[in-house]
Amino acid sequence: MSIQELKYCSDCGAEVVRRVPEGDHLPRYVCRRCSKVHYQNPKVVAGCIASWDGQVLLCRRAIAPREGLWTLPAGFMENKETTAEAAARETREEAGAEVTNLHLYALFNLPHISQVYVMYRGLLVGGQARAGPESLEVALFREHRIPWDQLAFPVIGESLKLFFGDRGCGEFPVHAEDVVREPDGSIRFMRRS
Amino acid sequence: MSIQELKYCSDCGAEVVRRVPEGDHLPRYVCRRCSKVHYQNPKVVAGCIASWDGQVLLCRRAIAPREGLWTLPAGFMENKETTAEAAARETREEAGAEVTNLHLYALFNLPHISQVYVMYRGLLVGGQARAGPESLEVALFREHRIPWDQLAFPVIGESLKLFFGDRGCGEFPVHAEDVVREPDGSIRFMRRS
Repeated sequence: MSIQELKYCSDCGAEVVRRVPEGDHLPRYVCRRCSKVHYQNPKVVAGCIASWDGQVLLCRRAIAPREGLWTLPAGFMENKETTAEAAARETREEAGAEVTNLHLYALFNLPHISQVYVMYRGLLVGGQARAGPESLEVALFREHRIPWDQLAFPVIGESLKLFFGDRGCGEFPVHAEDVVREPDGSIRFMRRS
Repeated sequence: MSIQELKYCSDCGAEVVRRVPEGDHLPRYVCRRCSKVHYQNPKVVAGCIASWDGQVLLCRRAIAPREGLWTLPAGFMENKETTAEAAARETREEAGAEVTNLHLYALFNLPHISQVYVMYRGLLVGGQARAGPESLEVALFREHRIPWDQLAFPVIGESLKLFFGDRGCGEFPVHAEDVVREPDGSIRFMRRS
């Protein structure tokens, strides 16, 4: 997932080898012929907690991984867009929904899969949504109806827990947490600020 | 800078073509032979405002771009690390300095170069720093001594302005801003939250 294997140089087509380039401190894929260094970096996932009339928008996944489970609209950020634009686009694509008044809400580091989740909160325009091609269905949930045991990813449950907790207090500070995968495979959240 | 040109497939070494894959909505590099889609995504730059005794740590760049100009320690996040670890590592590499008590401070979207800056604030341990290989020199600056007209990137000046403003108020909310490049090449900051 996180470190993609490269076999050939995208510049010249020759084979690459994995080694620490001169002056560097980490192994990289380096072309045997043209010496180009192919850097690999973490990816940003942008998502959105879209609320309307006290309810939150969730999508039931139509695709792997975690098909059939519920998630917040979220996906890989594209080049040339902002994190907020990415969150709004994913909400449009997965839930046929428009969001407004977006605010940065949480940043999650997932170093075990080299991802950074950037979660926004916003208002669902008109309470309108419909399943996009990647969703089996979409629905609005009040806090006590959230399908906690059928959420697709731990970071989704954590985002919702933070959100409902903050909503209870009437304040929405920006959260920063590390998502730590323990040796036994379990996931733990560490608050960073 | 933002969209890297690919010529050959890293999986099989055949030529790639740029087209919109079926079910997608953006052009990607796709292998003519094995059909692998090569996605390209924004990169995260992590940086740090390290302060000590009312002063802030800056580095004068020894490398392109903007060689000779002053910057906050910052650089591309690596796989398998958190944004805070990346900020601390860059501070260690560029300024020979250790930072503690890191807090998420600002997120800047730079869509014109497909980057996301994640800026932390922290304490410089012992006020100690020395130039690393990518720095000509490092120094601690009080607010009125900051070399505002010799900063390497607009986002560095904006980070420092936000920081000194917040320090004056005694509160450090997390900032989110878009960095917009105007048609005339000038840079404008838009507050997002």
